[in-house]
Amino acid sequence: MTRRDAIRPGEVAVDLPPATDAGLVFIGRIRTPWTDRLACPRQGRRDGPVCRIALFDTWAGGLDGLDAFDAVEVLYWLDRSRRDLLRQSPKRDGTTRGTFALRSPVRPNPIGTAVATLVGIEGGTVLVRGLDCLDGTPLIDLKPDRCSFTPVDGVPD
Amino acid sequence: MTRRDAIRPGEVAVDLPPATDAGLVFIGRIRTPWTDRLACPRQGRRDGPVCRIALFDTWAGGLDGLDAFDAVEVLYWLDRSRRDLLRQSPKRDGTTRGTFALRSPVRPNPIGTAVATLVGIEGGTVLVRGLDCLDGTPLIDLKPDRCSFTPVDGVPD
Repeated sequence: MTRRDAIRPGEVAVDLPPATDAGLVFIGRIRTPWTDRLACPRQGRRDGPVCRIALFDTWAGGLDGLDAFDAVEVLYWLDRSRRDLLRQSPKRDGTTRGTFALRSPVRPNPIGTAVATLVGIEGGTVLVRGLDCLDGTPLIDLKPDRCSFTPVDGVPD
Repeated sequence: MTRRDAIRPGEVAVDLPPATDAGLVFIGRIRTPWTDRLACPRQGRRDGPVCRIALFDTWAGGLDGLDAFDAVEVLYWLDRSRRDLLRQSPKRDGTTRGTFALRSPVRPNPIGTAVATLVGIEGGTVLVRGLDCLDGTPLIDLKPDRCSFTPVDGVPD
């Protein structure tokens, strides 16, 4: 998503091990208004624009029951991010912090997480507010937000 | 993590596509008191026992600056979960809901997320309260919790 090539002064890259410990399957695609990373908000806003999370046909049936919740946790794959930075310089001034002290998209496993407000479900598409990712971002998971997770009948899942 | 083999009445499995859309690299290992899934809590509790998130040596340097935050978001790989269920029956009574309406570990990309209280950092090991995963669970990401994410100097990352 950002700086595929450039390293800023003070940043540190590691020799990334092969990313073969586990494999992901993309389950859908996220449609947002943002086609350029410079236009993306830094964090999603719960009053932001409605975005469409379109599940692939195989997975659409897995949405049944999601409409009972107000908020959903969305996991997506930041497919344009480099993955090898150990220290980063968000301010581009040579001062750096460890990757795990930042929510930067640049990380060994570039998974973005958001808690979004559920607006509606139309077939295999989930409408939400509160995302901050680029248009076309691959979806990897969707689940009721842990905070809003009140089992319907008192039996925990 | 659960039910690798059995399908309960009413549950629906899909023909899982190859999980090769993206690859993960495990960056550490989580040590918890729970060695059997039946002993795992359903959700982590912020007053639960201290757990140790041990980063592999390659990544330990990425923790610098994380101690400024009170809460961390932890992403981990539920390596004992089956991945092909579209509908699940958490109550084992034949009534089912879609996988994405549950926080079950059984999902196409079995990634667990937790927001944990940061207790301390000892070298490459992060001590937290609030996890619910099995001992030995592979770590895939660690970042400041979005709610507690107040940039140190007002400049967003």
